[in-house]
Formats: sequence, structure tokens, C-alpha cells
Amino acid sequence: MRTGIATVCLSGTLKEKMQACAIAGFDGIEIFEQDLVTSPLSPEDVRKMAADLGFTLDLYQPFRDFDSVPEDLLAANLRRADAKFRLMSRLGMDTMLVCSNVATATIDDDGLRARQLAALAELAGDHGVRVAYEALAWGKYVNDYEHAHRLVEMVDHPNLGTCLDSFHILSRDWDTAPIEDINAEKIFFVQVADAPKLSMDVLSWSRHYRVFPGEGQFELAKFMGHVVRAGYTGPVSLEVFNDVFRQSDVERTAVDAMRSLIWLEEQSAKWLEANAANGAAGTVAGGPPAPARRRYPMELTTLPQVAEPAGFNFAEVKAADTAALETVLGQLGFEFNGRHRTKDVQLWTMGHARVIINEQAPSGSAAPGAAAPAIAALGFDVDSPVIASARAQQLKAPAVPRKSQANEEVFQGFAAPDSTEIFLCQGSPDGTAAWINEFGEPRWFGEGLEVPSGGRSAVIDHVNLAQPWQHFDEAVLFYTSALALEPQPYAEVASPSGLVRSQVMQTSDRAVRLVLNLAPLLQQDGTRHKTYQEHIAFAVDDLVATARSARERGLNFLQIPANYYEDLDARFGLDPAFLATLQELNLLYDRDGDGEFLHFYTATVGSVFFEMVERRGSYDGYGAPNAPVRHAVQYDHLHQLTSSTHSTTH
Amino acid sequence: MRTGIATVCLSGTLKEKMQACAIAGFDGIEIFEQDLVTSPLSPEDVRKMAADLGFTLDLYQPFRDFDSVPEDLLAANLRRADAKFRLMSRLGMDTMLVCSNVATATIDDDGLRARQLAALAELAGDHGVRVAYEALAWGKYVNDYEHAHRLVEMVDHPNLGTCLDSFHILSRDWDTAPIEDINAEKIFFVQVADAPKLSMDVLSWSRHYRVFPGEGQFELAKFMGHVVRAGYTGPVSLEVFNDVFRQSDVERTAVDAMRSLIWLEEQSAKWLEANAANGAAGTVAGGPPAPARRRYPMELTTLPQVAEPAGFNFAEVKAADTAALETVLGQLGFEFNGRHRTKDVQLWTMGHARVIINEQAPSGSAAPGAAAPAIAALGFDVDSPVIASARAQQLKAPAVPRKSQANEEVFQGFAAPDSTEIFLCQGSPDGTAAWINEFGEPRWFGEGLEVPSGGRSAVIDHVNLAQPWQHFDEAVLFYTSALALEPQPYAEVASPSGLVRSQVMQTSDRAVRLVLNLAPLLQQDGTRHKTYQEHIAFAVDDLVATARSARERGLNFLQIPANYYEDLDARFGLDPAFLATLQELNLLYDRDGDGEFLHFYTATVGSVFFEMVERRGSYDGYGAPNAPVRHAVQYDHLHQLTSSTHSTTH
Repeated sequence: MRTGIATVCLSGTLKEKMQACAIAGFDGIEIFEQDLVTSPLSPEDVRKMAADLGFTLDLYQPFRDFDSVPEDLLAANLRRADAKFRLMSRLGMDTMLVCSNVATATIDDDGLRARQLAALAELAGDHGVRVAYEALAWGKYVNDYEHAHRLVEMVDHPNLGTCLDSFHILSRDWDTAPIEDINAEKIFFVQVADAPKLSMDVLSWSRHYRVFPGEGQFELAKFMGHVVRAGYTGPVSLEVFNDVFRQSDVERTAVDAMRSLIWLEEQSAKWLEANAANGAAGTVAGGPPAPARRRYPMELTTLPQVAEPAGFNFAEVKAADTAALETVLGQLGFEFNGRHRTKDVQLWTMGHARVIINEQAPSGSAAPGAAAPAIAALGFDVDSPVIASARAQQLKAPAVPRKSQANEEVFQGFAAPDSTEIFLCQGSPDGTAAWINEFGEPRWFGEGLEVPSGGRSAVIDHVNLAQPWQHFDEAVLFYTSALALEPQPYAEVASPSGLVRSQVMQTSDRAVRLVLNLAPLLQQDGTRHKTYQEHIAFAVDDLVATARSARERGLNFLQIPANYYEDLDARFGLDPAFLATLQELNLLYDRDGDGEFLHFYTATVGSVFFEMVERRGSYDGYGAPNAPVRHAVQYDHLHQLTSSTHSTTH
Repeated sequence: MRTGIATVCLSGTLKEKMQACAIAGFDGIEIFEQDLVTSPLSPEDVRKMAADLGFTLDLYQPFRDFDSVPEDLLAANLRRADAKFRLMSRLGMDTMLVCSNVATATIDDDGLRARQLAALAELAGDHGVRVAYEALAWGKYVNDYEHAHRLVEMVDHPNLGTCLDSFHILSRDWDTAPIEDINAEKIFFVQVADAPKLSMDVLSWSRHYRVFPGEGQFELAKFMGHVVRAGYTGPVSLEVFNDVFRQSDVERTAVDAMRSLIWLEEQSAKWLEANAANGAAGTVAGGPPAPARRRYPMELTTLPQVAEPAGFNFAEVKAADTAALETVLGQLGFEFNGRHRTKDVQLWTMGHARVIINEQAPSGSAAPGAAAPAIAALGFDVDSPVIASARAQQLKAPAVPRKSQANEEVFQGFAAPDSTEIFLCQGSPDGTAAWINEFGEPRWFGEGLEVPSGGRSAVIDHVNLAQPWQHFDEAVLFYTSALALEPQPYAEVASPSGLVRSQVMQTSDRAVRLVLNLAPLLQQDGTRHKTYQEHIAFAVDDLVATARSARERGLNFLQIPANYYEDLDARFGLDPAFLATLQELNLLYDRDGDGEFLHFYTATVGSVFFEMVERRGSYDGYGAPNAPVRHAVQYDHLHQLTSSTHSTTH
């Protein structure tokens, strides 16, 4: 598949955009007119630069408001087009995007439109240029790709064809199957964009909220499947207007964009595969035989295939001073499993939940509080770390190799968009990990205290990571494509410093649950977002027993206000003894049609805290109704700390 | 008018919110349930705190999903209500908001709904509580305030009344006139919120985009006029769900909120005044005589009245090192008018355009580059500075008195939300300013060089200020209410670092044009937003002559790329000689149905640059199509500066 991207997707100057596209490895780009008009580079400079950077200039865009106009305006439009065609020959470009008229169209007559488009095609032909005509979703008279293509067929000119843009088609819910009926030679260009499903006017939606494939909710693999079946072999080019991408780091956005096309290519191949099979199976008895598997001229590269991860292998917290972490883990019932043979790391376990304490200051250490504990890495159990790693590399995930000795297990690792390190580990059916043998003789914490029985089968239930606002969509695609996690509909949770957007990514069996939180802006400072607290949650069988043991060991629980328990009672009408237990132990509670959820939180250490949960029945959530309580209490603690610091230092 | 605010409008803990409401001077507050549930304060603490802070607790809210349910759910809902009524008696609150059912309603039967609401009212009565029933705009069966009130009338119980919320009524475009037909005693509560007109689903619109009155586009004065005419005398209380307010400084947001109610009160009085007259004039001959002016029990306080400002009196730029500024102003054709008798400021004039250079570092001087020139203050010509100042003070604008000697003109000044100082000056019909006599003997800049004839009638055309994202809506209300500027529909302009939202505030005669720009987030660092460049534009009669003179004096023009002029020609088909002049002098050009616009920009000094404009015909815009060119060139300069710094220092 030939990959492309429109310069309007990216931030910066035309030169910066072109360089970033080359680094990300695009085959070609679309030049957005405004990027050229505002550039000090001459058309000849741009042409040379593209050649030097090794990609083609595939599309000049857009030419707006051409068709359905009165004669005098048509003449002016043709004059304007002529100037642009001349510019394009200096650029060495042969295809121009012409959008259906939005602003100046006054005559709704397909015959007139066809004649006007014919005049444009004729003029284009004189300059050796092809015109790709596209129906904008909000075009005044033409807003449906089939209508646009009927016009192209009416004109029947070699220099006029169709441009298909997934946003304009899928935002209007047009049926994509008829794409297959279009003569491939008349599909001059294909643009792809994804988007979250929003119910708002389509123009605002298009101009601000488009995202790269895999970051939204459009059925893009199906769209592409039909395009491939039609026989199209040209560029598949991203045209994504997004307020965030327009202000984010250009090289990083270009890589995110390329990852989205690599993923889309794979998904399209899968859709074709699945759909060919369905087609055969669906043949009616007595009907025509299923056609032989059709070959499509577009070559779709596939990636190494991985299954969903089977679970968390470990979570790693970095801390320059590990004492507070050790205390909390011990109080929760974790056992100290010793230090690593060759590295400055400790292993703590509870059942199959493994926490590594890395005795280093977290990165970004110039920031205040950076030496405090922070989540640094997550390990995932996969079938084959080598295959999973190869896949991630092909998806342009930045590798983070970890030093190891000859006889130690080598982890394949990658940096996630928020800079958390993701390691791919060899899973085992019994939930153990071979590498724990690399840790020395365990020294037991809190001798004489029993590990609570509920803890023996403990696992990491979920991990909650804060995402910088510039990299939220990128993170969704990263975990979807590289780790085979499935994004769920997001929730919004109130906190005293603003709404927190909470995006769950999980495996179908829920063995891995990763929660990506988009913190309020004032809790982010652009470079270091971790003023927002992150956490690791462990699931146990008997939360009440776990909490009692932890209390005996002196754990500093997050203190839940009495008002919460009154409200809980008003909502659920709980058994008074049970309610008293919850309140006594600072436990939170939720219930829905599937089951019940009990959980508690520890006080925060650095930017990390821990949660212990018990899922009863088939409860599948995270106690979202309780999140505002947690946020409010944590906020209060933080402010008390801040004000006590102030009163001491001022 | 009794003022109120719901705690959900504000950031922080319940305690912080209550303190901020007291400082802003609200008469009462609504307690949002989640704020109480998440608070360590007991209901009794909250009650005492409110009494100590001097306001009442007017409404407990919300109680959701009560009506239109089957019997078993009704019983559970009544039990839940009973718990909340008991809680309210501990809080000393007597009114609860009950919203029409969204989630659990299954039976669409007004008779059943009335019986269920009657049961609730009866229970409320037992606790001495009143229930205010409100139709949510997205209520499943009840989403219209008239429907909600018909139910209240059917029930006819002293403890059941109506809550009117402007958002739920105006978002659905319900007619507000029938409010006058409601028996005032049955209107238990009135909530107000404004909103920008967005075409999106009403729930998302409501939960994220509400703003305070005067910051949106709803006809709130009319809504309130009908409420007052109905005879309602209870609290008028803000219920504003806004993503930005929820994360902004709580005390500041509370003051912004109070300002919006003070302004709404005045606008409501004006609407009543205007509408009473209209009503009389509209009486049909032979119909009943116009009613005598009706008196309404709600007392509406009025503010000192001011007309629109007549023009800019001056613009002030602060700079620790003034040399670069002096050079640019001199090159533009400004004359140096001497130094002030007692202050370290210089006066530069061109026609009636006056620029004060204040020889001080701009405030916030810890930030890098803070000593560089920045726009610090604007003076506006008003009829009466004293009256305008009194009005601004009543609108809670923070005063910034300026030191002055006995025989000097005293400016009344206020800090705008972005911290620009706004001074109210005595206007004069001939456009002169008396205070210039306080400046010493002029020393002429560039002796022997003529002031270009076009410059003799120069004025400040517009000023463009960057706004921090947390204070954008606040700024719109500030300039609307305190300075009588009118907000125009906003535009969005592309820049290499993201979209810039551009909001024009102007007088009806365009003598004052103030542009508020919301810069991309990465150009803001929360505390100091001025990495985004701001500018002052001067209008002259002959821009070409002004530009030629400036070039002779060596002005460093913002260099416009050649591609721009090619595109200009393609768009407008300009006379070749004129086009050559534009390109030779780095002039930009725009044209619309009303006229033409010529302009050029200087290079940036610190965070300030200057623009010279010529308006031909009735052109009323700002050359918005050219803004991306300016942004791109400025961005390029900034990056070249940054990278040349890098190459020297590394």
C-alpha cells in the first residue's frame, strides 16, 4: 500500500513537515495550499526537496468552490484554476483535489455541473494535470460520493476522476459497498481519516476532531476493503484536521500517522480475508458458485501476528528513596523476594502480582519531586516476546533495550507515548515468571505476620496511567496496534481540579486492564505530566481480610468521608453490619446488574498509590461512581501538604 | 435580585468553593450532591460554615431519575429521597431539585407521574422540604418546562413547585413568554446559564460548554424579564457546567460568576424597560388600553450607565530596554513627544495615535524574556471616566490606581483578565488628549524626515491581545460589561503551532476594535501566556506612502513570501503594477464586497509587533485570510532565533 499524508495534519512550517514525513517514511505527501502560500520555499525548492527526501508530491489541495456557479464566476474560477495548474507544473505535481462547492454554488443542475467540470478537466489536460473531484459531507448540492462519481462519469474525461475521503463518506453514514462498482481507473485518490462518533455539526467535527485510523470509531478497514476490491492501487493518504496534532511535535505526530496506516493496512487485509470467507459461506444453495478467491492488485503488507497479552507480568516503580514504597507494599501483604543478582532492583510479590522497585530516580529528574516514586514500566505476558517485539518495531514503537547478563532473561521493551516502558515477557500457563530466579535469597518482610489467604491468588487487576494531552490519541493507537488491547467507550470523572477523561484499554478476557487518564490541563506542565497521580490495582479474593491485615500492619489508608457512607446507604440500602465494616475499613463499594465491587486505596507515595480490589460476580467496572471521592480526598491531602510547606518556608 | 451559584460551577473542595462564594458576595449557594458526598465536612459543619460566611444554602441538587417508574423502583426512590430529606434537615436546607427522569423512566403517563410526584411532595412535606421539579432538555418523557409545570399543577401540593433553568429552556428553543403565566408562588427556583450556540447533542453541550451570562449567545435578559414579570422573587442562581471553570482558580471564577449576575440584572431591567414601551406602542387601535406600567416585586439594582468608548486614548508598552521600540516607532513615522514630567515614560504620537513607552520591565519578570517589550496598558476615551470607573468597580473589576501628582490627570484604571491595565480617559471631540501637556519639550526623531501625509490623521485601528485559556470567557464578559464592547462571532486562524481563536470586541461605530486571541496551548505556560505575540495596529490614509517612508528609514518589515503574491494574483487578478508595489513593500491585501484592506507588519520586538493598515471603502475586517502568512513567517523567525541561539550555546 502506498502511504501518504496531507501536510495539514502536522504542525510547523512546510519544510519541517516535509522533513518529518521523510523520517516517518511516507511514500508521498499532499501539499495543503496554505502551507505552500505561507512558505518562503519556492515551488521549485519544494519539488527538489521532495526528491531529495525520497517521496513524491501526490496531491495539491484543495481547490474550493468551483462548480454549480453562474457563467461570470465560472470564468473567474477557471482563471484561478489555470494559475494553480501552472503552479503545479512547477511543483511537478499531476493531481489536484477539487471539492464540491460549499460557498458559492447557486445552480443545482447536474448537467451544468458536468459541463463546468468538463471545462475544468479540459484545462487541466492542457497542463498535464488530473482533477480528483470529491464530495464534501457538507457540500451545498453534492455531498455524496456516488453523486460526485456520477458527475465524473457524465463528464467522461481522462483528466477527471473521483477522490474518496473516508471522513466525508463515513460521517454521513453513506454505504461504502458501492465503492466496489467504481472503475478503479476513475478513482484518482483516496484519503483516510478516522473520527470519534460525535453528534455535532459535520463541519466542526471534520475540522477539529478527525484522528488517525485506529484512534476513532469509523469502520475504516471495511472502507479500505471496498477500495481494494475496486482495484485501486494509488496512494492511501491521511487527511486529518485535528486541533491537538496541529500543535504537537511534528516528527512524533508523523510517526503516529505512519503507525496508523501500517495498522490500517493490516486491518484491511484481515477484513478482506474475513469477508471473502463470509461471502463464500453465504452463498445460497442453488445459487451461483462462490467466486474463486479474487486477487487484488494493491499489495497489503502484513505484520507479525500476536494474540492479546495473557496478563500483567510485573509493574515497576522507580524511586531514589525506596523506603516508603517498601513499607506500603509490606503493609498490603506483599513479600520481599530479594534483590536482583546484577541490577539495583527489588522484587515484591503477592500471589501472581509482581512489583519491581527500581532504585533509581524516575527520568525527567530536573522537575521538582522527580526523585519521588513513579510508575516506570509494565511487563505483559505474551505468547512470543520475539514476535510481539517484531510487530511493535514494525509499528515504529521506539525500542528500550534493557541491559542484561548472558544467563538472564532478555526483555523486549518499548517506550509508550507517555514514556512508560512496556516490556514483552514470556507468559506461563501457571502465572509464574522464570526471571524471578534472578533475584536473591528472599528476606521476609514482617516476620510472623501471615500473608492473608485472599492474597495468595492476587494478580494485578489494572494499572492507571496519566497521559499528556498531546499524546492521548497516540496512546490509544499504540496500545491497540502494538499490544492488541481493545479501547472501550471513555468515561468522564469529576475531580476538584477538573474533569478527568478515563479510557479503558483491555483484553477480551479482562486479564489485562489498562486505564489511560487524561488529567485536567492544570495538572500537566507539558513536559512532565505526572503531577497527576497514577496507580496500580491488585485483585484479591477477600478484600475485607486484606484490609484488616493491612490495618494491623499500620497501613495509611486513603480516608473516606462519612458523607460517602451515608450516600452509599441512601443509594443501595446496605446491611447495617456490612456498611459499618466498609466505613470502619475505609472501603468503597459499587454494585451493578453484574455484581459487586469492593476496593480501597493507599495514601500516595510520590506520584504513585495502590488500590486493592475484590470483584464479586461478573462486575466488570472500576467503581467509577467512587472516583470523585478518591480525587477529592487526594486533592485535599495534596493541598494540605502544599499549604503546610508554605507555612514552614514563608 | 438575590444572587446564587451552584457549587458545581467551581473548582476545588466544598470548603474552598464556599469561601470563594463568600468573597465574591453571593447571597446563597446550591449544594451539588457530589461536593458534599466527597467532603470531610459534616452536614452540620457545612450549615455552620454557611452561616458564618453570611450566605444561605438555597438548593440541594440534584435528585435524579425519580418519576415515570414502576412501583418497585418508586419505593426505592422514595426511600432514597427520604434519606436525602433527612440530610437536608441537618443542613438546614428547604429546597431540593428533582430533575425529570432520563435513565430509568419506562412509563409515559402524566397521571402516573403526577401521582408519583404527589407521593414525593407528601414525603417532602413531612420533612419541611420543598421539591422543585425541573424538565431536563434531554428528559426521556418530560423535557419542556411547560410540561413539567402542568404536572406541578396537576399535583397541586404546597411542597411541589417548578424549577426554571435557562439552559434547559433556551437550548431547546422553547418559547419563554409563557413563563409569565406561571403562578409565581409555584416557581420554587430559577437557575441561569448562558452558552455559545453549538450544534451538537444537548447533553454534551450542557455538561461541558455552559458559560456565565454574557459569555454566550442565549437571550437571557428576555428570559429573566419574563421571570420577573411572573412575579418571582427568589434566588437567581448560576448552574454552569464548564470544563474550563472546573479547573480554574476558584476565587477568580466566583468573581467572574458574580459579575455575570450583576450584568444580567442590569440587562434584565433594560429588557423590561424596552419591552414595556414596545408593548404600549404595539397596542392595536380599538383594543384594550396599554396597561399602566406594572411594578414587579423583584428589585433590580441598576449600574452607572456608560456609552461605548469613543476611541483608543493610548496604548502603553513596557520595556526595560526601550531602544528597539524607539527605533521601530520612529521608522513607522511616529514623533517623539518627550518624557513625562514625573514618570519614567515617553510619549510617541502619529496623528491621534498615541503610544506610551513605559521604561520598566513588564510584570512577571522572573520568566525568561520578561524584560522584553510587552503591551501593558490601553487607554479608552469615555464620556465620564468617573462614571465609567464606578460602573467597573460595581462589576468587581480589580482597580489599578496610578500614581500621579496634584496637577496631573488621574486615570481610573482596572486590570483586565489577562492582566493588561485598562484606563478610562476623558475623551475629547477633536481626538486630542489633555494629558500630553504633562510631557516635556518634544525632541524630534529623525530630523529632516517628513511625517508622511497619510500619518497626520493616524489612529489606533485595533489592538490584538493574547488571552490565557483559563480566562478567555471571563475576558469577553469583562469587556462587554465594563467597557460596553460588543463581541462578534469568532474566527479560527491556522498557525504553524495550532489554530488561533480570534474574538473581535468592538463598538458599533468601530472606533474601538479589540481582538482577543486564544493562543494554542503550547504557546501558553499557564502563568505567563505572552510567548504568543501581541500587536497594535494603526490606521493611515495612504499605506503605500507610509510603507515607502518607513522603508527609507530602514524599517525591518515582516518579509512576505513570494508564493503569497502569486496566490493573491490567482485569487483577485490584480493590476500587475499594483501587485508589484504590494510585493516590493511587503504589503498584504484583502478585498470583499465592502472594500479593500492593505496592511503590513513590523518585525517583533520582545512580544510586541506593530501593524499599519489602510481601510478602503467600508472594509470592516482584519485581513483574516492573511493571518496564516503572518503566523508562519513569525514562527519561522522565532525558530531561526531559537536554533541560532542553540548553535551558539551548544
